[in-house]
Amino acid sequence: MDRHFDEELQSLNEKLLRMARLVEESISLAVKSLTDRNEALAQEVLTREGPINLLDVDVDEECMRLLALRQPMASDLRFITAGMKIGSELERMGDLAVNIAEVTEDLLRVPPLKPLIDIPRMADLAQGMAKDALTAFIKRDEKLAREVCLRDDEVDSLNDQVFRELLTYMMEDPATINVAVGLILVGRHLERIADHATNIGEDVIFMVAGKTIKHHIEEIRRAAARTE
Amino acid sequence: MDRHFDEELQSLNEKLLRMARLVEESISLAVKSLTDRNEALAQEVLTREGPINLLDVDVDEECMRLLALRQPMASDLRFITAGMKIGSELERMGDLAVNIAEVTEDLLRVPPLKPLIDIPRMADLAQGMAKDALTAFIKRDEKLAREVCLRDDEVDSLNDQVFRELLTYMMEDPATINVAVGLILVGRHLERIADHATNIGEDVIFMVAGKTIKHHIEEIRRAAARTE
Repeated sequence: MDRHFDEELQSLNEKLLRMARLVEESISLAVKSLTDRNEALAQEVLTREGPINLLDVDVDEECMRLLALRQPMASDLRFITAGMKIGSELERMGDLAVNIAEVTEDLLRVPPLKPLIDIPRMADLAQGMAKDALTAFIKRDEKLAREVCLRDDEVDSLNDQVFRELLTYMMEDPATINVAVGLILVGRHLERIADHATNIGEDVIFMVAGKTIKHHIEEIRRAAARTE
Repeated sequence: MDRHFDEELQSLNEKLLRMARLVEESISLAVKSLTDRNEALAQEVLTREGPINLLDVDVDEECMRLLALRQPMASDLRFITAGMKIGSELERMGDLAVNIAEVTEDLLRVPPLKPLIDIPRMADLAQGMAKDALTAFIKRDEKLAREVCLRDDEVDSLNDQVFRELLTYMMEDPATINVAVGLILVGRHLERIADHATNIGEDVIFMVAGKTIKHHIEEIRRAAARTE
């Protein structure tokens, strides 16, 4: 392979990893800020938005440049288009960390509702998915990527549980409404972080295996063929 | 230009328009189902998820195929990569319409809180943005695309207003908690639909003008250059 092109792909890879690290840290700082009631950490998350956005645009422009100038084939093409998509997913995960930090700043102005148990558990799961999706990307590990996608249901059902529990709190004691609504939003944001991790998992599978698994597309296509 | 390639680009364009129409209808059915308290319309939204997902994967695979086989340059390359991105944005907007329909099904089981005013207004704004973003895509209209991006703030501030009003309702009358939380979620979903319309607007500007405007990137880069 052209050595210069190889270096360019390597540099794209490194940009994505730098972005991934910033996003992982943002998520983890945002959750820690909430659980430790530490506002400085929430502030820290906000300072990362700019650098993440800058990398998002850099990755995007670099992918466009490589597509235009190198006219890549097969696995290089799949790597570059996966890179574009993973960049967007990471940027959105970074936004969600900012959203969690913003809700947290409001929540820290009032006394806590109760010790948080399920939200940190959701956060652990979502962060674990994000971490593994990116490891799957780095190691081109299709098996790990598939495993990440399977974990999404667990986060969804934990979020439903958190949601129902917080509704009950509010109904029993309306003084908790403000805090409970804030925590419901945090739950949603974590659920969406897990969704983006799943999307990255799907992108990795496509990149490695050239197969689309999103939307359980094979079943949908078979069903569509039957009704035709 | 190669006539066959021209036809392929035309067919990609048509797929995106078909997808856009389905998504627009989904959003509008979901909101109508809520305002008219008509469950059949919510059900109708759910039946559109499959066809939208199918088109999403079709668009994606077609873009990959064109990138691999046609090795497009300049404006064709920008059209194809914008198509990939716009396809994802549309698919997410379709998901949000499904989310609104799901919340609506729950809300229709209990009496309404009050006549809805701000949520239909938000819905009109978000739908208008989606429609115009797609018109901008069809007509390659950079000016309209920029205008769509500017309207996002209006939806955000309307959503903040809806959120605060619903919090007040809940605090004054805890019996409204269930409905109010549902409406808060609908507000969020509409806000995110507007965000995706904004993303499409940004993709159109990039496609037409080759310029990235997302994240106000020019200001960020100038600021980054100053601190270096």
